[in-house]
Amino acid sequence: MNVAVVGVGLIGGSLALDLKAAGLARRVVGVDLNPRHAAEALRLGLVDEMTDLAAAVPAAQIVVLAIPVDQTVTLLPRVLDLIGENAVVTDMGSTKRSICDAVNMHPRRNRYVASHPIAGTEHSGPSAALRGLFAGKLGILCDIERSAPDAVAILRRMYATLGMRLQSMDALDHDRHVAYVSHISHITSFVLATTVLEIEKNTSTIFDLAGSGFESTVRLAKSSPDMWAPIFGHNAEFVCEALDAYIRNITAFRNMIAEGQGAALLDTMSAANEIRRVLAGITSTPAQSHHHHHNPGHQTTP
Amino acid sequence: MNVAVVGVGLIGGSLALDLKAAGLARRVVGVDLNPRHAAEALRLGLVDEMTDLAAAVPAAQIVVLAIPVDQTVTLLPRVLDLIGENAVVTDMGSTKRSICDAVNMHPRRNRYVASHPIAGTEHSGPSAALRGLFAGKLGILCDIERSAPDAVAILRRMYATLGMRLQSMDALDHDRHVAYVSHISHITSFVLATTVLEIEKNTSTIFDLAGSGFESTVRLAKSSPDMWAPIFGHNAEFVCEALDAYIRNITAFRNMIAEGQGAALLDTMSAANEIRRVLAGITSTPAQSHHHHHNPGHQTTP
Repeated sequence: MNVAVVGVGLIGGSLALDLKAAGLARRVVGVDLNPRHAAEALRLGLVDEMTDLAAAVPAAQIVVLAIPVDQTVTLLPRVLDLIGENAVVTDMGSTKRSICDAVNMHPRRNRYVASHPIAGTEHSGPSAALRGLFAGKLGILCDIERSAPDAVAILRRMYATLGMRLQSMDALDHDRHVAYVSHISHITSFVLATTVLEIEKNTSTIFDLAGSGFESTVRLAKSSPDMWAPIFGHNAEFVCEALDAYIRNITAFRNMIAEGQGAALLDTMSAANEIRRVLAGITSTPAQSHHHHHNPGHQTTP
Repeated sequence: MNVAVVGVGLIGGSLALDLKAAGLARRVVGVDLNPRHAAEALRLGLVDEMTDLAAAVPAAQIVVLAIPVDQTVTLLPRVLDLIGENAVVTDMGSTKRSICDAVNMHPRRNRYVASHPIAGTEHSGPSAALRGLFAGKLGILCDIERSAPDAVAILRRMYATLGMRLQSMDALDHDRHVAYVSHISHITSFVLATTVLEIEKNTSTIFDLAGSGFESTVRLAKSSPDMWAPIFGHNAEFVCEALDAYIRNITAFRNMIAEGQGAALLDTMSAANEIRRVLAGITSTPAQSHHHHHNPGHQTTP
C-alpha cells in the first residue's frame, strides 16, 4: 500500500518508520509545511519522498494526519475531497469531537475513521521519531458506525501492525475521559514549570535541588505548545470541568496544610495512594477502606 | 565505625546497604518501632542487628535518623542525650527548620549535622531499599556553623562514600526552595490522583486511557502519607506560599482555555518549555525571548 503521512514529526515519523519496516506500507510519502522538518524527515529516512498534499493524497490508500488538532479540522475536509475511491483517512489527534464535527456532513465521511493512538513522548519533530513507539499501547477508534466497514478494517489492520490494542468509543466519551487522564496532567505539569521558573528565576543553581520526583512530575511541560494549545482549546468544556475539580481539590489540600489538619491530610493521601493499584491494572474495590494506619518508626523517603 | 540507623525503610535501608558495602560501617545496627519492618530489614540483610534506641545509640559513631520529620523532632533531643562523646548524629528529613529548632538549645547541638539527601523513590519500607540509591545525587548540609567541624567532616565523608555531591545552605533557604522544587510537585501529583479517582471511580477500565505521560505525572502520588503529611505540616508556610502561586497560575491557565485565548496559552506554554533547558543543566538566559514561533504543519504528539 501507499501511505501518505501529513506531519512528519514524532507521531507521523514513528508511524512511517513502523509501517515501512513491517511491510504494510510499500511506499510512504510525507507532507509537511515546515521545510526544515521536511528535509529532516528525508535525511533521517522516515519517508521515501516529501511532496505536497495535492500530489500525495490521491495516490495513497491510507492518509494519516499527524498535525495539531486545529490544523486537522481545517485540512481533513480538503483531504477527503482529494482521496481516491477506496482510500481511508485517519488522524492521530488527542481530541475527536471537533474533528468529527468538521466532516460529519462531508459526502465522503465514511472514508474517514477517527482515531487516537495513546502513545508519545514529551519530545517533538522528526528527530523525535522512534521505531516501536506504538507497540503495546492502546489505540482508540471513535464513532466507527459513521465509517465504512472496510475503512475500519484497514485501520484495525494498520494499528495491529503497530502492535496496538484497540478500543472503540463515542467521540464525546473519548474527549471527556482524556480530559482527565491526559489533558489535565499536561496542564498540571506546565503550571508546575511556570510556578517554579517564576519563583526561582534568579537562582538557576537552585535547580540542583530538583530530584527525580520533580523531573518526573514536570516532564510533560517540555511538550510542544503548538500541539497542546489547540487540544486544550478544542476540548475546553471537559478540560475546564476537570480543572475546576482539580482546583477545588488542591485548594482543599492547601487549607488542610494551613490549618494543621494532619489526620485529614493522611486520609486524603492514603486515598490517593489507590492510584498505585489502579496503574498496576488491579481492579479497584471502591468498598475498601482507605483509612490509613499510622506506623510510628515507619521508613521515610525524604 | 559502628553506624546506627533509626528507621530501616527505603532511605535508612539503602544507606545501611551502601555504608556496609563501602566498608565505612564495620557494623550497622538498626532501630525500628515497626516489628514487621525490623524483621524484614534483618531478613533482607540490610543491617547486622536490630535493637532499641538505648542500646544502639551509645555504641555508635554515626547515628542516622531516617524517619518522618515529626518523629525526628521528637526523637532527636533524646538521641543527643544518649550519644557517645565523639559521635555524630544526622537526619535525612526533607525539612530542616523545625528539626534544627528542636535542638538548637541542646547542650550537645554541635554533634548534630542537619542534612537532606535528595534521593528517593515513590516506594517505601525495607523492601524498597536499593544499593546505589544516593550515587550521583545531591546532599544538602544545613546550618553547619552550628556543628563541630569534626562532626561535619565525618558527615562529608559519609556522603562522599555514598557518591553524593554536597552543598550547604541555611535551613530556612533549604525549606523555601524544597517547597517549590520538591514538596509542591508531590502535592500536584497527589491532587491529580485524587481528582482522577474521584471522576473515574465507576469506570475502572477507563484507566486504559492513561498513557505514560499520566503515569509519570501521577507517580509521586504513590508516596508514603506517613512521611509526606508531616513534611507538609512542618513546611506549611513555604508550601502554602508555593501552592498559592501554583493555584493562581492554574486558575489563569484555566481562564485562558475557557476564554479561547490561544495566543496567551502558546506564550505561557512556550515559557514553561524553558524547564527543558533548566533540567538539562543549561544555564537559563532570562533575557531570551520566550515568544513562540508557530509552525503550521509542525508535528504533533497526541
